[in-house]
Amino acid sequence: MPEFSPGLEGVVAAETAVSEVDGANGRLIYRGGYLIEDLAAVATFEETAYLLWNGALPDKAELAALRRQMAAARKLKASAKKVLQSLDPATDPMDTLRTVISAQGATKSLTKPTLEEAIALTAVVPTIVAAAHRRSKGADLIEPRDDLGHAANLLWMMEGTEAAADRVHWLDTYLVLLADHGLNASTFTARVIASTGSDLTSCAVGAIAALKGPAHGGATYAARTMLDKIGSAANADKWLRDAHAQHARFPGFGHRVYRTYDPRAKLLREMAKTAAPELYKTAAHTEEVALQILHEAHPERPNATNVDFWASVVLTGVGIPKELFTCIFATSRIAGWTAHVLESMADLRIIRPASVWTGPQPGSKPLPIGSR
Amino acid sequence: MPEFSPGLEGVVAAETAVSEVDGANGRLIYRGGYLIEDLAAVATFEETAYLLWNGALPDKAELAALRRQMAAARKLKASAKKVLQSLDPATDPMDTLRTVISAQGATKSLTKPTLEEAIALTAVVPTIVAAAHRRSKGADLIEPRDDLGHAANLLWMMEGTEAAADRVHWLDTYLVLLADHGLNASTFTARVIASTGSDLTSCAVGAIAALKGPAHGGATYAARTMLDKIGSAANADKWLRDAHAQHARFPGFGHRVYRTYDPRAKLLREMAKTAAPELYKTAAHTEEVALQILHEAHPERPNATNVDFWASVVLTGVGIPKELFTCIFATSRIAGWTAHVLESMADLRIIRPASVWTGPQPGSKPLPIGSR
Repeated sequence: MPEFSPGLEGVVAAETAVSEVDGANGRLIYRGGYLIEDLAAVATFEETAYLLWNGALPDKAELAALRRQMAAARKLKASAKKVLQSLDPATDPMDTLRTVISAQGATKSLTKPTLEEAIALTAVVPTIVAAAHRRSKGADLIEPRDDLGHAANLLWMMEGTEAAADRVHWLDTYLVLLADHGLNASTFTARVIASTGSDLTSCAVGAIAALKGPAHGGATYAARTMLDKIGSAANADKWLRDAHAQHARFPGFGHRVYRTYDPRAKLLREMAKTAAPELYKTAAHTEEVALQILHEAHPERPNATNVDFWASVVLTGVGIPKELFTCIFATSRIAGWTAHVLESMADLRIIRPASVWTGPQPGSKPLPIGSR
Repeated sequence: MPEFSPGLEGVVAAETAVSEVDGANGRLIYRGGYLIEDLAAVATFEETAYLLWNGALPDKAELAALRRQMAAARKLKASAKKVLQSLDPATDPMDTLRTVISAQGATKSLTKPTLEEAIALTAVVPTIVAAAHRRSKGADLIEPRDDLGHAANLLWMMEGTEAAADRVHWLDTYLVLLADHGLNASTFTARVIASTGSDLTSCAVGAIAALKGPAHGGATYAARTMLDKIGSAANADKWLRDAHAQHARFPGFGHRVYRTYDPRAKLLREMAKTAAPELYKTAAHTEEVALQILHEAHPERPNATNVDFWASVVLTGVGIPKELFTCIFATSRIAGWTAHVLESMADLRIIRPASVWTGPQPGSKPLPIGSR
């Protein structure tokens, strides 16, 4: 029996051409061999999703066709809308997303994952997220528009007014940057579910369930909450040193794979200067002090700022309430989840690892007489 | 980078004392060191679930307390009931289960997995399964009874009459036998989701999503469908040889871990003689011929009958329609899923494996000009 690597650290669980996290060199490569910084400079979320699904960027006609297809898939089915309206408006929006997308993708019999379904699921997530937001405020739901891009339509459905171009750009860039990231826990969950021959909605639902955790998608919310508690650049030093003395973790720092600065964090940090200048000041000083404290405590660890830290600042600049941060993460990552599932269909083999038994051997305890 | 083992075969992904599949010796050990055949002879499903959750079988008072707690948790919340009634009655019952349990466990903010929640989720699954069944027939829903055991109450809610003791016994035994099985794909999914710090309902929803696949929980339905097509013992030889010539797989045969006869299949096979004497004849001859064909084709493989094959016969004897087989599997396995999640809480570390990049290196393709 091979050695146990907790968290499957360093264990290869798939071959993939969807994305590669080159942690040693701080590079994130998307399908086709594009560095994330090169791609984000030219491609929208729709183009990025097309790339992850199809292996090449779309030409103009292909992009127009994808936009039409996504726009047509933005509405909730009648049953999913009823499911949405059955939930308490105060429900955690990730629980709403998990439940409503499960209803939206429910079918009469098992279906194999298809590209059409990947597109439809990706298209409908903003509708659910915006609806969860509107309901939490007691506001009427706003129907999707088919003349707006993915990011612009999300802000439209949340707010009922067309968002300024820069806000749309920041959100769209965030969606490009977060769309895929190797075998992160939610993507891996989607691949495990797919490996049993289950359907694509089941994969997406399981991935949403995994993304919810604070050690994964929930970290952006946690980073912003920390920044809220710190309040100002002047307070960062004292707050962080107190928290560290009490063995608190700093959300937004550290990553399993990166050994240098996360390339997505670098891009988001730069964007945060314009998107959220006030919060940027607090965040930049917080980062400086946090890195210093972490380096003093563990000089051997890389402890670099991760994507969640600067994402929390940029999403604040976009005007997204922090309660929705994990849902916005899901809005982006569903492109990657579905791309991984579609890729894995080519050679489906059930993912069923081994375990090490730590319990007693049979016969070591007498069996009590049960109620039978 | 270590070697890639497809399907994580032989890769240790957890240390556990919940259950152990000793494939080489054909043994299944449940928590406490009990062999499944010893436990199934004395313990009900409720006692088994208690064992998996707590590490020891309950005494009389503990069992009575658990039964009360489960009976009290059988009803759906108002919101979950509305969600149920929003779905098309023809929905795949696994999709109904996935959606309604997601609604039942939805909360306003993130909660850590607890034993109480494990009990509540396990208690409510039969209510959803029976409701999916009743709705598919256009029949009124039947409220749970708090004076019946887990298995008896499920049949009550499905049928509206008290089931005969032998049917309850067969179903209860099935639920004991299937309650846990090492790091199978759905349990592993639950553990991956738990590793992000997500909640217990999210773990259960993801596990249901994984169980749905025909290579996992869906195999019982597939085995029964094969038996339906074969129709009679006399037809088995011809049907199986034709199917094999067309490279069809035989559902209910083969397993990743067992190298000898699955101990659960052995117990179910014996029970099937009384539970479904007619179908038993067809199944027994089908098994004989299938094993012979598989051995001729692959003499090096163990190719033993697995649990799904004989479970499909026993559940038929219980009177469960085959469309519900995967849901009945979930009714049992949720005890194991939740036990694994609770166990994993002691040392939470995100499950985030590595992958091998099979795409092109950056710079190998020029970046087209995107729409930005």
